Amino acid sequence: MRTGVWLVGARGSVATTSVVGALALRAGLTAPTGCVTELPELRGPALPGFTDLVFGGHDVVTTPLTKRAEALAAAGVLPGRLADAVVPDLAEVEASLRPAPTDGGPGDRIAAVVRDLTDFRRRHELDRVVVVNVAATEPAPAPHPAHHDLAALRDALAGPVDVLPASSRYAYAAFTAGCPYVDFTPSTGARLPALVALADERGLPYAGHDGKTGETLLKSVLAPMFAMRHLAVRSWSGTNLLGGGDGATLAEPAANAAKVVSKQRVLAETLGYLPQGGTRIDYVEELGDFKTAWDLVTFAGFLGTGMRMEFTWHGCDSALAAPLVLDLARLTAAAHAAGRRGALAELAFFFKDPLGDTGHALGAQWAVLCDFVAGLHAGVTR
Amino acid sequence: MRTGVWLVGARGSVATTSVVGALALRAGLTAPTGCVTELPELRGPALPGFTDLVFGGHDVVTTPLTKRAEALAAAGVLPGRLADAVVPDLAEVEASLRPAPTDGGPGDRIAAVVRDLTDFRRRHELDRVVVVNVAATEPAPAPHPAHHDLAALRDALAGPVDVLPASSRYAYAAFTAGCPYVDFTPSTGARLPALVALADERGLPYAGHDGKTGETLLKSVLAPMFAMRHLAVRSWSGTNLLGGGDGATLAEPAANAAKVVSKQRVLAETLGYLPQGGTRIDYVEELGDFKTAWDLVTFAGFLGTGMRMEFTWHGCDSALAAPLVLDLARLTAAAHAAGRRGALAELAFFFKDPLGDTGHALGAQWAVLCDFVAGLHAGVTR
Amino acid sequence: MRTGVWLVGARGSVATTSVVGALALRAGLTAPTGCVTELPELRGPALPGFTDLVFGGHDVVTTPLTKRAEALAAAGVLPGRLADAVVPDLAEVEASLRPAPTDGGPGDRIAAVVRDLTDFRRRHELDRVVVVNVAATEPAPAPHPAHHDLAALRDALAGPVDVLPASSRYAYAAFTAGCPYVDFTPSTGARLPALVALADERGLPYAGHDGKTGETLLKSVLAPMFAMRHLAVRSWSGTNLLGGGDGATLAEPAANAAKVVSKQRVLAETLGYLPQGGTRIDYVEELGDFKTAWDLVTFAGFLGTGMRMEFTWHGCDSALAAPLVLDLARLTAAAHAAGRRGALAELAFFFKDPLGDTGHALGAQWAVLCDFVAGLHAGVTR
Amino acid sequence: MRTGVWLVGARGSVATTSVVGALALRAGLTAPTGCVTELPELRGPALPGFTDLVFGGHDVVTTPLTKRAEALAAAGVLPGRLADAVVPDLAEVEASLRPAPTDGGPGDRIAAVVRDLTDFRRRHELDRVVVVNVAATEPAPAPHPAHHDLAALRDALAGPVDVLPASSRYAYAAFTAGCPYVDFTPSTGARLPALVALADERGLPYAGHDGKTGETLLKSVLAPMFAMRHLAVRSWSGTNLLGGGDGATLAEPAANAAKVVSKQRVLAETLGYLPQGGTRIDYVEELGDFKTAWDLVTFAGFLGTGMRMEFTWHGCDSALAAPLVLDLARLTAAAHAAGRRGALAELAFFFKDPLGDTGHALGAQWAVLCDFVAGLHAGVTR
Ligand SMILES: NC(=O)c1ccc[n+]([C@@H]2O[C@H](COP(=O)([O-])OP(=O)(O)OC[C@H]3O[C@@H](n4cnc5c(N)ncnc54)[C@H](O)[C@@H]3O)[C@@H](O)[C@H]2O)c1
Ligand SMILES: NC(=O)c1ccc[n+]([C@@H]2O[C@H](COP(=O)([O-])OP(=O)(O)OC[C@H]3O[C@@H](n4cnc5c(N)ncnc54)[C@H](O)[C@@H]3O)[C@@H](O)[C@H]2O)c1
Ligand SMILES: NC(=O)c1ccc[n+]([C@@H]2O[C@H](COP(=O)([O-])OP(=O)(O)OC[C@H]3O[C@@H](n4cnc5c(N)ncnc54)[C@H](O)[C@@H]3O)[C@@H](O)[C@H]2O)c1
Ligand SMILES: NC(=O)c1ccc[n+]([C@@H]2O[C@H](COP(=O)([O-])OP(=O)(O)OC[C@H]3O[C@@H](n4cnc5c(N)ncnc54)[C@H](O)[C@@H]3O)[C@@H](O)[C@H]2O)c1
Ligand code: NA
Ligand code: NA
Repeated sequence: MRTGVWLVGARGSVATTSVVGALALRAGLTAPTGCVTELPELRGPALPGFTDLVFGGHDVVTTPLTKRAEALAAAGVLPGRLADAVVPDLAEVEASLRPAPTDGGPGDRIAAVVRDLTDFRRRHELDRVVVVNVAATEPAPAPHPAHHDLAALRDALAGPVDVLPASSRYAYAAFTAGCPYVDFTPSTGARLPALVALADERGLPYAGHDGKTGETLLKSVLAPMFAMRHLAVRSWSGTNLLGGGDGATLAEPAANAAKVVSKQRVLAETLGYLPQGGTRIDYVEELGDFKTAWDLVTFAGFLGTGMRMEFTWHGCDSALAAPLVLDLARLTAAAHAAGRRGALAELAFFFKDPLGDTGHALGAQWAVLCDFVAGLHAGVTR
Repeated sequence: MRTGVWLVGARGSVATTSVVGALALRAGLTAPTGCVTELPELRGPALPGFTDLVFGGHDVVTTPLTKRAEALAAAGVLPGRLADAVVPDLAEVEASLRPAPTDGGPGDRIAAVVRDLTDFRRRHELDRVVVVNVAATEPAPAPHPAHHDLAALRDALAGPVDVLPASSRYAYAAFTAGCPYVDFTPSTGARLPALVALADERGLPYAGHDGKTGETLLKSVLAPMFAMRHLAVRSWSGTNLLGGGDGATLAEPAANAAKVVSKQRVLAETLGYLPQGGTRIDYVEELGDFKTAWDLVTFAGFLGTGMRMEFTWHGCDSALAAPLVLDLARLTAAAHAAGRRGALAELAFFFKDPLGDTGHALGAQWAVLCDFVAGLHAGVTR
Repeated sequence: MRTGVWLVGARGSVATTSVVGALALRAGLTAPTGCVTELPELRGPALPGFTDLVFGGHDVVTTPLTKRAEALAAAGVLPGRLADAVVPDLAEVEASLRPAPTDGGPGDRIAAVVRDLTDFRRRHELDRVVVVNVAATEPAPAPHPAHHDLAALRDALAGPVDVLPASSRYAYAAFTAGCPYVDFTPSTGARLPALVALADERGLPYAGHDGKTGETLLKSVLAPMFAMRHLAVRSWSGTNLLGGGDGATLAEPAANAAKVVSKQRVLAETLGYLPQGGTRIDYVEELGDFKTAWDLVTFAGFLGTGMRMEFTWHGCDSALAAPLVLDLARLTAAAHAAGRRGALAELAFFFKDPLGDTGHALGAQWAVLCDFVAGLHAGVTR
Repeated sequence: MRTGVWLVGARGSVATTSVVGALALRAGLTAPTGCVTELPELRGPALPGFTDLVFGGHDVVTTPLTKRAEALAAAGVLPGRLADAVVPDLAEVEASLRPAPTDGGPGDRIAAVVRDLTDFRRRHELDRVVVVNVAATEPAPAPHPAHHDLAALRDALAGPVDVLPASSRYAYAAFTAGCPYVDFTPSTGARLPALVALADERGLPYAGHDGKTGETLLKSVLAPMFAMRHLAVRSWSGTNLLGGGDGATLAEPAANAAKVVSKQRVLAETLGYLPQGGTRIDYVEELGDFKTAWDLVTFAGFLGTGMRMEFTWHGCDSALAAPLVLDLARLTAAAHAAGRRGALAELAFFFKDPLGDTGHALGAQWAVLCDFVAGLHAGVTR
């Protein structure tokens, strides 16, 4: 099953780490640590192998992938020797990257993306292409009536005014080209009724939103712990200090707001009430691709006794995100191959702000994921 | 369903907090925070109500319960006004406490415990009595052949030499008196083949071992998180600083060793390998009943990138343990009423070192517990 | 030496804790923990004793002191038995509290404060009255030309428009009444050239600004440590979570900004450069009078090797501030008695944003303080 | 002033980092971050320049320096490009290393060291050689009467039995060869009356003990802070997790004990009382040369209010120690040149367990150091 993985934001940290990692795995230079789909519970015939993956993508910048890989190695995200070892393979991927279209109106730009996707699929003789959005986080767009109606959206896109943010244009193009779409960011992406209708019309699956790699991952196991123990969480306050490209983007108040909301939802939904406190994201350039999150939780136990816990998470965001991007590409490809359409709620395990109603508890999400994947494998061997 | 709760170590911090809390709940003076059996998922007709619980117990010291309650209030474990409000009810419980028997050989002392239990059940017209061990942690006993054979054990107990540690003598007495037995401590308790045989002979259920309230509770959600994400835990080092009666006992190297082993098992069994590092328990008198645990976890992600997390848990051990003691008493009583016998592996959720093979992941333990309790409730309404 | 201590914000947490503490010290009910002037290095004949202190003050609210003391006891800031024991003495202090004047123009309100101070001094036959500002933090005022010139200020105050913030009106009144003035807050207070000129004209000493009790206290020993070891601090990011009255005030962006600036100065001035990162103050009501500060410091050592430290400070702000208020009142009274006038730069030890050029290193500030106090004591015995 | 630096333990982490760093500084490849003697307050003509330093040393292992440097680069202690750049210079240092003498009795081995030192000085035409002990920490030796008397020691050394631990034999040899001796470790070194007498006889200065680089450095600023604020430290508990060669050595209970004692002294001496709690050192191989220390401090403030702070220090021990080794070599050489003899108490700033009575407060140690160095510089320019 030759599977294309088309990365929107292909020259970013997450994308570059995903590509270097996949190439290193293909070459047997590294172990699949962090790849959930390589766990015994999920491994199996339905998923395309690492050797079956072919990478391409769009970006608005033109920094060569090898240079990005070098920078990531210097920053401790990648081992330098791996970055060196995959240089020839990276050059091949480089040849499949396209500049993000900028000419013409929104309709023209979408058409250009559709062409790029179609060319990529044809040239590499791919069974399918999964589009994964790992571009910089956008601010939330202004609401527009066309977001709610596919026909109205089609009309609007024919005009000169941009009613869609970039992430949603990519989703529109992906669906138009017959490609499943995965949103790894908190941007709008396919989260508009008109785009859901389009996916539906084409019978395509999609997944999202916003990869869960740090503080929210911890919340998704700690909040259920407090809930299962009937402990009353009084406050939960978080600080996220991060550098890197993503940090700079999130320092913009609008993008920050988008991310913070998706981070707090897990608490309210898991606990059944929203404790006091909030989450902050601060940009500290010198921290580079490593993020430090600190959370303080105060809670009451039996007879109201006050207690507290705090944690510090010091994680490399790209190293945590990249294997999940590969997992999502493989899983979504398999779902598409199996004829699945619509929201892939079974992939909630991967997301801060998941589609569907699987809830936010990681253990429950894991059980649902295992069932789902078992079904995919069963379908193959049938 | 009038249910006796017989506490071994009845004048200790956990026992006193359990009793004060149950009395306060009965009087409607407090909410059941921390009581798992009061969650919507578990509540129901099979469980005895708080008003159905009658307390008694053994202890080797004679400090009045009201004095213990005052001391706990001064230490911030209980609200002072609650301790005051339940003084009359505490006096009633006081009347049901018995000194731990010390006269004669082991057989005589067991017989005395059996008498105390039988009297208690009769005098209060109880449907059943659940014995819960919350006495100070013992060192592991010297191995003895009689531990493995009930007949040999009976012979040995007739002699003058003590082949059983106190916790196991209480288990022996409980089973002899027809009472289910719950081991909330890391002591030996019913964990000997000869005692398992005795429980079997009498058709009685039992549960254990070692209530899970702090660092291990966190491990039981964090270790599965690392496992589910295929992250490679390289080291996990923990420090537990605690004062209080239990702290002083655990400062004894032998008791400490017993506790530490049960604390590390969760890692090895959840991860499938034992990371480097160990767990320590240090006695710091001034910390009183509040325990501070600090853990450092180092782990590798994709392409071997090194990351770390640390947490500090500042919990009041007795306030965390007491509601679980009530939960366990209620659940074990209901199981007994339903005719369950043998190890209650479904109660793994509560224990550091659970019986059976439910594993150590809290989410999975929770699912098993919910099923189990649903079964109990279904039995009642049938 | 009968010494009046006039508290602006007399019904606030810091003020109430200061008063209760002084009364308890006077009654021999507590030890002077936290009182710097009771250390062997500083103790001596020049300082008024706790029994020599007489309290009065202004506030805009009218909550009785005993009620505030009860609330502080319930919040764990004060031992309940102390609050109870000093009730009669508190009533006496209550009688010396006055409502913050609100009638008439700024000149009238200042005159009313002058009258209150003069009455207080006369009625209690005090040698002197030290005014200490512990009122809620104000936003920075709009700049005004009259701030820079005493004559212009006098003219302006005769008019109807308020050119001074409240803290500065209190300073004006204090100087007019012949009282030294201590600014324990980040508000403007005596920090205007026109007020400096007034203090000068009256030959009065003054001290400030902003009591140093938590994160900044730590910075004042840790930043010098990095400097003395020639380690290069790359980033220093801080989060302060606090409830309580002060927390609510500081949540207002304007007040927050005032406080944050005074918090970062210590870094730039001690290190000689400003590392990346910032400080945040977030209001979390449920944390009450206890504040949790968390700081992350990243630094480079020999050959550029990157390292990090983090700390969590869990302090009771009022319990940290109150003994310093007593210290400052005693020291400023002694300085006044010794004929000192102008800025008391020697008290830098106590402040986040000290007057003069003693710098921010706590050790150096301590040495200066010890010298200063030794001089005061020497003056007395001469 | 051509100055030899003779490293005992010359192939260890600290020694190798010191040598690589000095070579890199000499070549202008790095900045002197972490070198205290390059601060404006201490820089000056009395100290030998980095270009004046010539390295030699003893070790019991024979791993080439270049290999050790590579390993340190791989572990993130050194930048790889620096290790590469100094390879030719390292080869030269390699030529000056000697195996630790093992033949004959103690007297023979001391004589061999004296010969090595004398040869080194002569061959490189050095003005003086400072011997710095950076060898693995030894257990404390059994007490022996000859430790207290130089004549008795001379007699004993003539015999076959070893009454001195290795560190003290090196000190004996250093003094015999006319070399000042610096003890960077907690081992015995020159800390015996008989060796003090020998240094005295030869008119030589010496310094020690045990470089202060992590937890104790923090204690030396935090404990004075609590003391200066009259806060009552109730407990201070520390955990040190470390890998690396030193970690393995310290895991040996005897060496651990030596280190832990020197770590607690700072508290007792600074605070005037010993708080509860202790310090632990645990070996966690995977942490490599980076050490994580976590400390919890509980303290009482005004009216007994309980508070707490905790810190986590994540430092690279060798990167912290190496610049201090260079500082100490330069300072001790300058002191020797200036005719100083006996214990260099003025260097307390550098040590966990300093000679003399400068005390443990870093600020005070710094003031003493600055005075001392100013004196040295003044002597030179005179
Ligand atoms: N790393 C994580 O742990 C993690 C977790 C969840 C979500 N995310 C999300 O993943 C995304 C990527 O993160 P990153 O760290 O790689 O950021 P990055 O800044 O390194 O990369 C983003 C890339 O997107 C490109 N880009 C921006 N606008 C584009 C457009 N309109 N079309 C095509 N490309 C565009 C940028 O040029 C850049 O190369 C972010 O949105 C982030 O929020 C990351
Ligand atoms: N608090 C928690 O979070 C928690 C969690 C898991 C397990 N536990 C276990 O619960 C037990 C009780 O803890 P605690 O904090 O109440 O300790 P505690 O020291 O306050 O109380 C123990 C009581 O047991 C009594 N005792 C000792 N030997 C006895 C004997 N032979 N017969 C009868 N009574 C005896 C003691 O006199 C004391 O009153 C300990 O074993 C502890 O390890 C506690
Ligand atoms: N607690 C600390 O550690 C600390 C440290 C440094 C500075 N401070 C400063 O001390 C001040 C007091 O803190 P707090 O915790 O007691 O706050 P608080 O809110 O409990 O008390 C402030 C009091 O000031 C009164 N007030 C407000 N405006 C006034 C006015 N115009 N005239 C008279 N009274 C007025 C309020 O009514 C209130 O009673 C704050 O400015 C705070 O920033 C406190
Ligand atoms: N790194 C720090 O922050 C720090 C701080 C204070 C003290 N120290 C002390 O510095 C010393 C060195 O630390 P390290 O990390 O380099 O350790 P290391 O184990 O890497 O190096 C020690 C070296 O000493 C050698 N050695 C052992 N016995 C010897 C002997 N008898 N003669 C000559 N050489 C001998 C070993 O072969 C090894 O090469 C230790 O004693 C440590 O406690 C280090
Ligand atoms: Na912490
Ligand atoms: Na921490």
